[in-house]
Amino acid sequence: MEAKESCGVVGIISSEPVAVKLFYSMRTLQHRGQESAGMAVFQDGVSCVKGMGLVHEIFKKDDLQKLGGRAGIGHIRYSTSGESALHNAQPVVVSTAYGDIALGHNGDIVNADVLRKELHQKGWAFITTSDSEIIVRLLANAISESGDVVGALKSVMRMLVGSYSLVILVNGEVYAVRDPYGVRPLCIGRLPKGFIACSESVAVEILDGTFLRDVAPGEIIRLGKTGIKSYRGAGSRNPAHCMFEWVYFSRPDSVLQGRNVFRVRGNIGEILAKECPVDADMVFPIPDSGRAFAIGYSTESGIQFREGLIKNRYVERTFIMPEQEEREASVMLKLNPLKYLVKGKRVIVVDDSIVRGTTMRKIVQMLKSSGAKKVHLRIGCPPIIAPCYFGIDMKTRDQFIAAEKNLKGIAKKLAADSVGYVSIDGLVKAIGLPRKSLCLGCLTGEYPMAVPGEKQREQRSLNGFAKY
Amino acid sequence: MEAKESCGVVGIISSEPVAVKLFYSMRTLQHRGQESAGMAVFQDGVSCVKGMGLVHEIFKKDDLQKLGGRAGIGHIRYSTSGESALHNAQPVVVSTAYGDIALGHNGDIVNADVLRKELHQKGWAFITTSDSEIIVRLLANAISESGDVVGALKSVMRMLVGSYSLVILVNGEVYAVRDPYGVRPLCIGRLPKGFIACSESVAVEILDGTFLRDVAPGEIIRLGKTGIKSYRGAGSRNPAHCMFEWVYFSRPDSVLQGRNVFRVRGNIGEILAKECPVDADMVFPIPDSGRAFAIGYSTESGIQFREGLIKNRYVERTFIMPEQEEREASVMLKLNPLKYLVKGKRVIVVDDSIVRGTTMRKIVQMLKSSGAKKVHLRIGCPPIIAPCYFGIDMKTRDQFIAAEKNLKGIAKKLAADSVGYVSIDGLVKAIGLPRKSLCLGCLTGEYPMAVPGEKQREQRSLNGFAKY
Amino acid sequence: MEAKESCGVVGIISSEPVAVKLFYSMRTLQHRGQESAGMAVFQDGVSCVKGMGLVHEIFKKDDLQKLGGRAGIGHIRYSTSGESALHNAQPVVVSTAYGDIALGHNGDIVNADVLRKELHQKGWAFITTSDSEIIVRLLANAISESGDVVGALKSVMRMLVGSYSLVILVNGEVYAVRDPYGVRPLCIGRLPKGFIACSESVAVEILDGTFLRDVAPGEIIRLGKTGIKSYRGAGSRNPAHCMFEWVYFSRPDSVLQGRNVFRVRGNIGEILAKECPVDADMVFPIPDSGRAFAIGYSTESGIQFREGLIKNRYVERTFIMPEQEEREASVMLKLNPLKYLVKGKRVIVVDDSIVRGTTMRKIVQMLKSSGAKKVHLRIGCPPIIAPCYFGIDMKTRDQFIAAEKNLKGIAKKLAADSVGYVSIDGLVKAIGLPRKSLCLGCLTGEYPMAVPGEKQREQRSLNGFAKY
Amino acid sequence: MEAKESCGVVGIISSEPVAVKLFYSMRTLQHRGQESAGMAVFQDGVSCVKGMGLVHEIFKKDDLQKLGGRAGIGHIRYSTSGESALHNAQPVVVSTAYGDIALGHNGDIVNADVLRKELHQKGWAFITTSDSEIIVRLLANAISESGDVVGALKSVMRMLVGSYSLVILVNGEVYAVRDPYGVRPLCIGRLPKGFIACSESVAVEILDGTFLRDVAPGEIIRLGKTGIKSYRGAGSRNPAHCMFEWVYFSRPDSVLQGRNVFRVRGNIGEILAKECPVDADMVFPIPDSGRAFAIGYSTESGIQFREGLIKNRYVERTFIMPEQEEREASVMLKLNPLKYLVKGKRVIVVDDSIVRGTTMRKIVQMLKSSGAKKVHLRIGCPPIIAPCYFGIDMKTRDQFIAAEKNLKGIAKKLAADSVGYVSIDGLVKAIGLPRKSLCLGCLTGEYPMAVPGEKQREQRSLNGFAKY
Repeated sequence: MEAKESCGVVGIISSEPVAVKLFYSMRTLQHRGQESAGMAVFQDGVSCVKGMGLVHEIFKKDDLQKLGGRAGIGHIRYSTSGESALHNAQPVVVSTAYGDIALGHNGDIVNADVLRKELHQKGWAFITTSDSEIIVRLLANAISESGDVVGALKSVMRMLVGSYSLVILVNGEVYAVRDPYGVRPLCIGRLPKGFIACSESVAVEILDGTFLRDVAPGEIIRLGKTGIKSYRGAGSRNPAHCMFEWVYFSRPDSVLQGRNVFRVRGNIGEILAKECPVDADMVFPIPDSGRAFAIGYSTESGIQFREGLIKNRYVERTFIMPEQEEREASVMLKLNPLKYLVKGKRVIVVDDSIVRGTTMRKIVQMLKSSGAKKVHLRIGCPPIIAPCYFGIDMKTRDQFIAAEKNLKGIAKKLAADSVGYVSIDGLVKAIGLPRKSLCLGCLTGEYPMAVPGEKQREQRSLNGFAKY
Repeated sequence: MEAKESCGVVGIISSEPVAVKLFYSMRTLQHRGQESAGMAVFQDGVSCVKGMGLVHEIFKKDDLQKLGGRAGIGHIRYSTSGESALHNAQPVVVSTAYGDIALGHNGDIVNADVLRKELHQKGWAFITTSDSEIIVRLLANAISESGDVVGALKSVMRMLVGSYSLVILVNGEVYAVRDPYGVRPLCIGRLPKGFIACSESVAVEILDGTFLRDVAPGEIIRLGKTGIKSYRGAGSRNPAHCMFEWVYFSRPDSVLQGRNVFRVRGNIGEILAKECPVDADMVFPIPDSGRAFAIGYSTESGIQFREGLIKNRYVERTFIMPEQEEREASVMLKLNPLKYLVKGKRVIVVDDSIVRGTTMRKIVQMLKSSGAKKVHLRIGCPPIIAPCYFGIDMKTRDQFIAAEKNLKGIAKKLAADSVGYVSIDGLVKAIGLPRKSLCLGCLTGEYPMAVPGEKQREQRSLNGFAKY
Repeated sequence: MEAKESCGVVGIISSEPVAVKLFYSMRTLQHRGQESAGMAVFQDGVSCVKGMGLVHEIFKKDDLQKLGGRAGIGHIRYSTSGESALHNAQPVVVSTAYGDIALGHNGDIVNADVLRKELHQKGWAFITTSDSEIIVRLLANAISESGDVVGALKSVMRMLVGSYSLVILVNGEVYAVRDPYGVRPLCIGRLPKGFIACSESVAVEILDGTFLRDVAPGEIIRLGKTGIKSYRGAGSRNPAHCMFEWVYFSRPDSVLQGRNVFRVRGNIGEILAKECPVDADMVFPIPDSGRAFAIGYSTESGIQFREGLIKNRYVERTFIMPEQEEREASVMLKLNPLKYLVKGKRVIVVDDSIVRGTTMRKIVQMLKSSGAKKVHLRIGCPPIIAPCYFGIDMKTRDQFIAAEKNLKGIAKKLAADSVGYVSIDGLVKAIGLPRKSLCLGCLTGEYPMAVPGEKQREQRSLNGFAKY
Repeated sequence: MEAKESCGVVGIISSEPVAVKLFYSMRTLQHRGQESAGMAVFQDGVSCVKGMGLVHEIFKKDDLQKLGGRAGIGHIRYSTSGESALHNAQPVVVSTAYGDIALGHNGDIVNADVLRKELHQKGWAFITTSDSEIIVRLLANAISESGDVVGALKSVMRMLVGSYSLVILVNGEVYAVRDPYGVRPLCIGRLPKGFIACSESVAVEILDGTFLRDVAPGEIIRLGKTGIKSYRGAGSRNPAHCMFEWVYFSRPDSVLQGRNVFRVRGNIGEILAKECPVDADMVFPIPDSGRAFAIGYSTESGIQFREGLIKNRYVERTFIMPEQEEREASVMLKLNPLKYLVKGKRVIVVDDSIVRGTTMRKIVQMLKSSGAKKVHLRIGCPPIIAPCYFGIDMKTRDQFIAAEKNLKGIAKKLAADSVGYVSIDGLVKAIGLPRKSLCLGCLTGEYPMAVPGEKQREQRSLNGFAKY
């Protein structure tokens, strides 16, 4: 239940105004970021509205109705690079010789600092601290040389190392671009009157659209009013889809690379029950993040499913006192054990993942002081032992409870009677894609791309887009 | 999942400052109302802070630290009478010959208009349109005559018809008062350094307190730093606890009249499975209101529990366009069926209750268009056919889908293959209290108190506080 | 230039909607108070909108257009009694047997605490701490006895001691009431389609209305759509019009008791030049409060008029640091001497009045360090030596620089070469009304009404309304 | 009294923190722009705070105390180029190979579009629509080539055509740059512990600093903690100081090019009295813009000075209804004639300038309907007949009342009995600088620089900085 968010992107082209459509799609992607949001639409030039907060707080009826274009992009942001401020909110819009270009980015450019330094040496000056400005200005520069958007995109993709799912609005056209590893999700759909590219399939459904397919790693797609066109953007490699999208990020009702997120979580729960069985009176989730896993665990183990922790749905993240005492109270404000249910019982508590473990320890303590006889933790993600460089806010090694502890030590630290994680093999099996097509960097310390100071996993070049 | 909220009250006396304690208690009661909140503390005189919005939005660190008193009350409001505005936010504070008096009220005074008219005739002028001003001014008037708070409370209780759980702050003392029928909940607890009266037991727990007992119908309790004192406030009757507190209002982790809310809901689900069985592939809830019922239904029926509808946790109630189209979209924004799960399946959907049924119809339609073969609705509350006069915002008969329809007609109207409600007997059994000690007015049209134009159920006077 | 504000009232009846009219009138009276404002209009019942801040910040187009009534009152507030908060903003609206009553009050009720205590003893409870609640509830009580608004107003006027200019909205009628001494201004005008009562004549003019006359001391006026009706409300006495309305409060373009404010200030300046002549190179005002006086001084003395101090029109009262250093800077931010003009010159600086003198001292110092050879202060109001109990925020004796000092001592304290005040006789002559018809309490320590602990000036009862 | 604003800049270097100093300086320059403001300070890197609104609304105590640097710049903006939004607020901060650079700009770059197009062709992409981004990015580019700030500034100055007073913060140093014509003001001063560059001398005085001198046209100045250093930035020409800075923009207490603004306005008034005499009973200003002129007119003509129009100081620019009716009312809300004074009189009304004349017409009408027998207008600025391209928001010819009318026609259009403007020669004489060192473009249609489609006045190259 710890926050580890990313960003979300949408691009729409239609024969009708797109602002309201963008608005609804963006709301379905709100779970991917709550810091800021913005949309840019094209009509003659590009108009852009951005703000801090949730989508429905930023865009008002009047704004949306004024934004009259038939092509547009939207972005939902949880800061992973660049200071957290309106200044860095996306889309980034620039004026160029080729007209206004707007860009929204989900991911993390590993070589951003290197690129920025190189460009500084050429006399470039950057107004924001975001990766997105680098990308869009490289793009503008490349277009001015080649006069061709797709060609320019290809050359920019050759420069970038990292994860990126991009939506780009240029001259009334919308492009969707996914990095050669396909780390962050990106898919396309057909709308009643147009086309959409977006982070997750739910954003297609809300507009009564038809999900078409995921954008392939390294693919460039141009959305047109009457059809879409695909280009190979970068020599493709083994894909490296972030396993965390299934475990935590994406909405349960999304389908990524053909795998429904809720179903994957249920699978994990079932495998977890096989891998880490324990005798107990009931199994229940940390609400709401652990629920799908817990149902799977219950189904496989035959141990009855219950709800032993009640969530206070009105507790926001803003607390008035930053002290320790406050944070202790905050867990209690957010979650409360059902005493009558757990008293004297051996309980299995299931959650999606553990990063630091501080919250989990408090939950176990609450359950114990509510009378639980045994508290067994079962976790739907293998131990996280290494940082993420591709879009998740886990950057330093010393924060991970699992980094240097064995299971017994972790259980002790968490005050639990036992701790069980799904294995990496189990996770891979639950997702149902080949292990080599997933990014497991935070679980293994081996990364699909070259990250300074980190180990890169073995690579194999592929011909054509990755297939599996 | 339709909103039918009430209010929440807290009163605390302690040897330490109470403002932060009130703050935490009020946050645990936030589900009882989100319109406005306020607290009043006593130190020399009464200081009061009120505002529109959620508790954590209204009270800032500085406010709470400035409020230095050792006795105070808090109120969380969802407007049931009086216009919705800061003007009518509670607590109401008045200056009297006896010092400042502050009062917070959960409930609905049935004879408020009659009382207001009588008092108008005596030359009284009212500044607010709330019942609470009537109560507190009658109280001030009575105290000036008797010079005795408890005596005055008794005389005011004799005048009031309706539901009321009150917390009152007068001269550094806190009183908790519950109407003779005990319609709305009110309980007391011991804190590490003081005492608390509050709407639900969760507000005791968050302060590391010990739940003591419910306030009895008709009881007046005075909280002191070293103990509590009980007075019989009104000749007691058969209690009439609102069944909706277990079905919907109260938090699952609260215990009302000795009955844990989540457990009652599970019981209802089990009884519902017995009363309205149906062959199906899975059972799932409308999240989150139907979950406890659905788990009970699954346990009893042996039909597997699933989560077939995914809730978007970031969708607020504020929508930008009030049109029909918007509202249709809003259900989809909030809930999305898991297509892979429901496709080709016979599903049982469980929710707590149906009032108007408009949302439910849309949910059924979404499930059908996601491929569900059969959709059976099972409802944890018997058909609502009559208004509530005691604190729930259901005032007109023509809004109820159940008011004039048989089950078949309702199913048709909801586009469902079948609809099943728990029976009144089943509900009563699930709660575990005698039928005669519950208010079932909205289910039967017979009310525990005289309501103009409505039928009153048979009464029996009791000696002493109601026991069961 | 020190702030010593009061309140403003307006009441309008028309055959057209009055909300926008009230809005404009209230804006012309904004100088009488900037803390909060409110308006109440009658249509079936009374609707009231109030807020903190300036008139144009509080009332939005939509509010005003929604407020559909043909009768209404408005109030602009600078807190003189009651805590400063929205809670105490006016108009105060109450529901009574006689319908809703709304009241706006400019003035100060001297016996408010005595009345409140008496009413407390009768069991009354007050929701606000304002005088206005006392007045309106006494009124409601009196109406319920007599069934007659005018009769009730008379009986309430008999109970009140203090200053009050009231506008009252009851059952679609607007009443204007002025205390028996006429301390605060109140006048009436004819509008193109109705009638208006308001604090100052400028509020008539902005609506293209025709000023009719001042409301007489002790008079009750009922505004009707086709005419006005006058009642004698209280046995009248010598009037006691606050001299400060001409000196400081009222707008220069207003006419009070037949005396134009700007002209009175010019007269004072001329008399001041006769009473306190001094040889100098130029005369200039503290902008903008002293300008009219300075022009008069220049005209009479023949010493050339200049602008030696430049005002920064964007300096608001909000400063970021409350420390002394900050306040020093704040005077400099607000006023800056024209060095080229004052250097080496003997200057006469004219202002309307001095209360504490702290700002004046800083101004003199700035002029000296800008090179002024001599700085002579000339003040358009005689020395203030006693508190005001009738609506000006000067309540404690020890704040007055003039209370215990002779002119030489004052000049020294203000770092000036000389200080000259207009005499009381000069002031009275400049206003042009008989001395006995003015309230000079803050200048003489003798008050027109009985104030506990203060000396009352000789009274003489009059028959009929005061004439002069 | 029509708004025709510009921007303001400040740069400070000190041995103490500069944020609070910038704050005070910026407040004294608030009259130069009220749309947005920002400051950037250097400590390790550059921190920047910007916002919409007035200086004291944007910067809070906490912000200022957190901003710890010893060098910084501030900017106050009234939009003259670029859309009006936070997005375009200044300072603009960029990261470069040379560290962060922040820039604040007052002026208008005539060839901005040309430059932008050229740079677009080179592949540059711009994030804002402001001239300032062009300047700062050209500067960054130039520094990366030369490695030398002053050299880079010189090369950028060679590219720019237009008016610019710049403050630049780079690597803890502050540079002040003024365009070769010195169109907009810029001066330097010594502070108790450092140095300041700012738009007007008042910003030096508020910090207890000593005014040193104006920055020369084409000069680059580097502020250091212990001294300042001057560089010749551009081959200088005849200066072209904007005459409107004396007539309207600058504060009366500022001194520009050695000429005190208030004194210049007084001079104009005197000359106006000589050039356009008329027999009348009194002379008064449109407050506050016309006051200095009117005093001068009165002094020279011997006609008595009065205040015949009273200004409502609380009327903001925000009006609730954009319709014509509203705007009519708005003039009345803002200004009210003193009827007693003007009735039956021949009055001379003096103002600084007329652009469109719509407001002036309403004022004349108000005076006439207040009974004025004759209304003669006297204007302290010669007729404006051509657009400004150097920083004033007068861009289209057809808005000027004077563009195609003779004096009689103008008087008729303004409903006045006569209109008199000061002559260009009179204006030049009043300022006291050689005609050739002033920009009179809006009066003559001949501009000091090449403006596409406009006539350029004769130029003469100078050696060294301009002297006169």
